[in-house]
Amino acid sequence: MKLSSAKLILDTALAEAQKRGVSVCISIVDAAAWPVAFVRMDGAPLGVIDVSNKKARTAVLFQMDSADFAKVAHPDAGAYTLENTNGGLTSFGGGVVLKAADGTLLGGIGVSGAATQDDIDIARAAADTLTA
Amino acid sequence: MKLSSAKLILDTALAEAQKRGVSVCISIVDAAAWPVAFVRMDGAPLGVIDVSNKKARTAVLFQMDSADFAKVAHPDAGAYTLENTNGGLTSFGGGVVLKAADGTLLGGIGVSGAATQDDIDIARAAADTLTA
Amino acid sequence: MKLSSAKLILDTALAEAQKRGVSVCISIVDAAAWPVAFVRMDGAPLGVIDVSNKKARTAVLFQMDSADFAKVAHPDAGAYTLENTNGGLTSFGGGVVLKAADGTLLGGIGVSGAATQDDIDIARAAADTLTA
Amino acid sequence: MKLSSAKLILDTALAEAQKRGVSVCISIVDAAAWPVAFVRMDGAPLGVIDVSNKKARTAVLFQMDSADFAKVAHPDAGAYTLENTNGGLTSFGGGVVLKAADGTLLGGIGVSGAATQDDIDIARAAADTLTA
Repeated sequence: MKLSSAKLILDTALAEAQKRGVSVCISIVDAAAWPVAFVRMDGAPLGVIDVSNKKARTAVLFQMDSADFAKVAHPDAGAYTLENTNGGLTSFGGGVVLKAADGTLLGGIGVSGAATQDDIDIARAAADTLTA
Repeated sequence: MKLSSAKLILDTALAEAQKRGVSVCISIVDAAAWPVAFVRMDGAPLGVIDVSNKKARTAVLFQMDSADFAKVAHPDAGAYTLENTNGGLTSFGGGVVLKAADGTLLGGIGVSGAATQDDIDIARAAADTLTA
Repeated sequence: MKLSSAKLILDTALAEAQKRGVSVCISIVDAAAWPVAFVRMDGAPLGVIDVSNKKARTAVLFQMDSADFAKVAHPDAGAYTLENTNGGLTSFGGGVVLKAADGTLLGGIGVSGAATQDDIDIARAAADTLTA
Repeated sequence: MKLSSAKLILDTALAEAQKRGVSVCISIVDAAAWPVAFVRMDGAPLGVIDVSNKKARTAVLFQMDSADFAKVAHPDAGAYTLENTNGGLTSFGGGVVLKAADGTLLGGIGVSGAATQDDIDIARAAADTLTA
């Protein structure tokens, strides 16, 4: 993923978070799960830095949003303990796969710090800038 | 957090543990989760050293007591696997947020080694010295 | 450190890197060494992501630029192995302390990916925006 | 090591640091290298927390002061890379072995944050309380 794309996604996520009046961390990783860009908004709890990183990482490593990953990695589901691989993954929403308009995998975005549904909505709004 | 405050909190926790006849570890971290003071009482099992550290860290990183953190990070709750972030967090009581009388976040205390309710009560008694 | 300050520093560093025609990673951490902002420019080798992080971390944890840290942590200097503490620190230039105009410690910046002197100059130009 | 002994050592080290007008971290570990007590004085750089821990650990693990450890673990000495074992050890002064009056190994103390000679003197003064 090019930095110009990552900045566009990041700015969209920041604007969406500001519109909702929430403070979040935003992490963007490339298709190989390496960091491209990150910001922590003023007032976000320190603990969510690692959460936004892990959400982005979860999304791209298994090519599914972290809310979907939660379903397969739950103790009562088919792949329990999958969340303990790859340095620790995240079984709740806010990690979203980033794809180009033609479906090519570009990377992942993780948003953390607000209510989970807000995190998801912000990440989704940002991801949609790539296909708009 | 100043060391003078940390020592006051620590001494209160030690006195409360002695009153109850239990042996615990007590960890105090600042608002950025860096250690300020720590003691291990005679007879506390070695395994609880890391537990008291992680309880203090959990409380301050997410600005909630570890007993409350347990509710959100449970496998059937909204943020399962949150406990796997930040080097490992603690989903049971004994980690308490430390706040000044005006509500400013000062840090966190973790107590471990006794029954969980004792750990919680000791940490709470110590935290209350800041607002008394 | 506020995100608005971090973005100003980051944009200055990016502009300086572009002017020199080099590709770098830029990491900004607060006074407690927690990440505030990060970008990786197109073409920077993957290995320098961690280097820029560790340079920023080195600068703020010991309140000295990483080029100065190198002098004290050298095998024949007074604090050999200091570089092995705190998860691994960096004994060459490109990590710079961030201070406000009144001297208050605000955090650290790490730049990595170009020749070391370029890394240093970029970090220094960015840090100077806080006192200009 | 009993907590009462650790507190006596700690208070001596604190008093000595205050007399010299320096800010240090002080770590005390038992004969099995497990933490017993720790304090960070106001104004000590965050980076020295881990250094004081590693100095105490180095002293007790090899039953020699960290200044002596430096001689054997230097790149030009007989046990180069010994400093990379046990999670990272420290090759400069400020870690001192703690022994009872009869020579029994009790643990180690690490002091870090001042000039190395100050760190050593503070640790030594504290260790001497056990044999006085």
